[in-house]
Amino acid sequence: MARNRKPKIKRPTAAPPKGFRDYFGAEVTLRNAMLAKIAKVYHAYGFDPLESSAVETVEALGKFLPDVERPNEGVFAWDEEGDWLALRYDLTAPLARVYAQYRNDLPSPYRRFAIGPVWRNEKPGPGRFRQFYQCDADTVGTASMAADAEICAMLCDTLEAVGIARGDYVIRLNNRKVLNGVMEVAGVFNPDDPAMFETRRGTVLRAIDKMDRLGLQGVRALLGKGRKDESGDYTDGANLSEGQVNTIIGFIEAGRESAVATCQRLQELVAGSEIGRDGVHELKQIAALLDAQGYGADRVVIDPSVVRGLGYYTGPVYEAELTFEIKDEKGRARQFGSVAGGGRYDDLVKRFTGQEVPATGISIGVDRLLAALQTKGGVNADSVGPVVITVMDKDRLSNYQTMVGELRDAGIRAEVYLGNPKNFGNQLKYADKRAAPVAVIEGADEHARGVVQLKDLALGARLAEGLISNEEWKAQPAQKEVARGDLVTEVKAMIAQSES
Amino acid sequence: MARNRKPKIKRPTAAPPKGFRDYFGAEVTLRNAMLAKIAKVYHAYGFDPLESSAVETVEALGKFLPDVERPNEGVFAWDEEGDWLALRYDLTAPLARVYAQYRNDLPSPYRRFAIGPVWRNEKPGPGRFRQFYQCDADTVGTASMAADAEICAMLCDTLEAVGIARGDYVIRLNNRKVLNGVMEVAGVFNPDDPAMFETRRGTVLRAIDKMDRLGLQGVRALLGKGRKDESGDYTDGANLSEGQVNTIIGFIEAGRESAVATCQRLQELVAGSEIGRDGVHELKQIAALLDAQGYGADRVVIDPSVVRGLGYYTGPVYEAELTFEIKDEKGRARQFGSVAGGGRYDDLVKRFTGQEVPATGISIGVDRLLAALQTKGGVNADSVGPVVITVMDKDRLSNYQTMVGELRDAGIRAEVYLGNPKNFGNQLKYADKRAAPVAVIEGADEHARGVVQLKDLALGARLAEGLISNEEWKAQPAQKEVARGDLVTEVKAMIAQSES
Repeated sequence: MARNRKPKIKRPTAAPPKGFRDYFGAEVTLRNAMLAKIAKVYHAYGFDPLESSAVETVEALGKFLPDVERPNEGVFAWDEEGDWLALRYDLTAPLARVYAQYRNDLPSPYRRFAIGPVWRNEKPGPGRFRQFYQCDADTVGTASMAADAEICAMLCDTLEAVGIARGDYVIRLNNRKVLNGVMEVAGVFNPDDPAMFETRRGTVLRAIDKMDRLGLQGVRALLGKGRKDESGDYTDGANLSEGQVNTIIGFIEAGRESAVATCQRLQELVAGSEIGRDGVHELKQIAALLDAQGYGADRVVIDPSVVRGLGYYTGPVYEAELTFEIKDEKGRARQFGSVAGGGRYDDLVKRFTGQEVPATGISIGVDRLLAALQTKGGVNADSVGPVVITVMDKDRLSNYQTMVGELRDAGIRAEVYLGNPKNFGNQLKYADKRAAPVAVIEGADEHARGVVQLKDLALGARLAEGLISNEEWKAQPAQKEVARGDLVTEVKAMIAQSES
Repeated sequence: MARNRKPKIKRPTAAPPKGFRDYFGAEVTLRNAMLAKIAKVYHAYGFDPLESSAVETVEALGKFLPDVERPNEGVFAWDEEGDWLALRYDLTAPLARVYAQYRNDLPSPYRRFAIGPVWRNEKPGPGRFRQFYQCDADTVGTASMAADAEICAMLCDTLEAVGIARGDYVIRLNNRKVLNGVMEVAGVFNPDDPAMFETRRGTVLRAIDKMDRLGLQGVRALLGKGRKDESGDYTDGANLSEGQVNTIIGFIEAGRESAVATCQRLQELVAGSEIGRDGVHELKQIAALLDAQGYGADRVVIDPSVVRGLGYYTGPVYEAELTFEIKDEKGRARQFGSVAGGGRYDDLVKRFTGQEVPATGISIGVDRLLAALQTKGGVNADSVGPVVITVMDKDRLSNYQTMVGELRDAGIRAEVYLGNPKNFGNQLKYADKRAAPVAVIEGADEHARGVVQLKDLALGARLAEGLISNEEWKAQPAQKEVARGDLVTEVKAMIAQSES
């Protein structure tokens, strides 16, 4: 047995597990500020916060049960004295569990929002992490299309609240029932036997979903025999007939008009399908409600090419797309793309209670939205650090502490240098690393004369960033002697100037 | 094999795993508001936020490695393709990992704060959960006592910022070196062989730690032969001689004086121990710095009975105690007790790098502090819900949506009832469950006349809570008809009155 072998003492690796990362300083502050703005809008709409536990039973999460041999596929799961526990992989499965558990105490309908990390046991990649934030809002317990319309309107308000200007985003709206209806018309959906053609329908849905990326020709190929991409790889198609392909393509193209015209065209296309007509009616209701509230075609459009991957959607689906252009890694202009998506799902709670509970909701991709705000320049990293009080005489630490107290009382972020004060150069290097706007210096001489030196560190940084010219830099004194009594006023003025 | 047996379809239980819980509405809002206030103080002191991953390698967490047969003792851990991963059990171990990983990029000293959930795989009990929040601030990379003094001052500011009045709390300060010094004097610590007497010293420390609960007599018994408690259970003592016991007791009692007098007395007590003298010198430095900044004996006291359980503290230790009385479950008055604790630990980073990195920090017990604020009445659950617009005529949903939009634009939280509108009684029950201050009613008649009915729901609630008398209730109309154009003004007035 290996037990008696004493292992060599080895230092642990200072790194998080593969696919996990840490967030520092301004990254945390910016995200929290954005999330607080989102929460404020949700709250104003009557949504209540819910914070469920990060750990659930695998049984309650559900999705992974069919494959009993591998209960932890896609999730981080472990056997805890006979119970399989897992980290939540989204915020919707826990909502279904909570609603089923507390349904007699919760108001009905129940509007709730949730913000927090989720975990995915997937292969990590560039920009793809195994822990990330989600920010969800859902309304549980009503089949009313007014709930879907409300979520779309709230999504508009949310995007504008965090700093995405009107015109820079659009909510694209579709309905799974319409999708099923057009499939029925095309002969790949049988409402009496939904399982029939399931694989083929999956291929069709995936093809429609690629409209943005491949364009009409590409989608047409994938609906027919198949498609060879630029690299030469071949993707099998759905093998639809020419007539079937035309039906689907006509459907996708129905969206390039006003909501009223789109609904009219969709209605004609799915005339032979009951579920399809149902879906169009739902779209009409949502569009009418939104229109009456002033959320017109400049913000919400009906787009039949919206699919949304998740299998559980049963009615309206929607996604928020940012329409401004960014440069990709090769310098080509492309649209930023989707930052939020959701839809109606009526079966999630049924797993627990046996009763169907209608629900609809949205999930915001927190990291993507934050990246968009940074790209757009609407939000900048809070690059100004604290004022640093340097230590010239370590026996007078309490003098420096008094200064720092005065600055903080005036609302200025400030700190005393607490490293070894011997090497003054190190103190200034530290202040630079802290992105300090000002360093305060008070040696024995200054102390005796009742003055302090203020070193304007922001000035050098602004010069380095090209924000000011050499001439401006020279014209402004990089260091200034001020009366000790004017410390707060002078520091405040220096910071104000550096931010102007 | 069991594989071919088709399991009976069974509904999952709608409950979180044992020891986990969910937080709803105002609980989440209150905690977030408190944490935002804390973060603001930490930030003003120059501390930067850090959000490390919830999952770490068991190797990096460290504490659990010695027992290789049970790597998950105390933590939730699982084998991920040969790597043992675990949920963090505190925020200090991840800080050590992060500091070791990024030490060349981080400023030195590095002040950071962290707020987030941690997980403990312990037997849950009443009020003891397996997931809870911690809120930490640490300074890594300086041995200066100014860092410890700063943390104590910041802790005072933090408690006052969240609503604990000066006089209702005290920071109790001690030093592990002084504790070791007095043990050396008492003959149970050998600085040349710290492992000697380790078990016995543990018994002594545990005895000192019980000073609050057992008083001098109880501690004296535990230092000597042992102690029989009220239930008849016997706890073995440290078996110290009468002289040794007197040394320890004299030490504990040294704290009942001013900081200067306490340090003087401690200095005499540990005169024979170098490490003890070192510790007293550190306490003196901290006390002097705090005193110079105005943090006097009304807020910070030296208390030799403070031990702090964790093994890794190496110098100053401190804890924040709330001194106001609460009633325990038997109605007896008792002090609220500790809400935060911390101290200096110099060895945590060494595990990774081989280099000793001095560090000091504090951890706030978020749930306990929140409970204290609620007990003290400083913070009340935000019991006012949204204004509810009822639906009298479902064909005029967009009218109701317009109303809700007007209210929200005026900063009033509001929602339209989205359940089945048929039964109006259900709508009012819903509004009650939502703790709505006002319900808005507009039937066909009101619509035609250009008016709305406002139902004051807060009034009934105030009557039920005994906040107003029957007479006052009768004097105020429970329902009021107002012009549609005055909706916002009148709702605002009604809410203002209900909050007054």
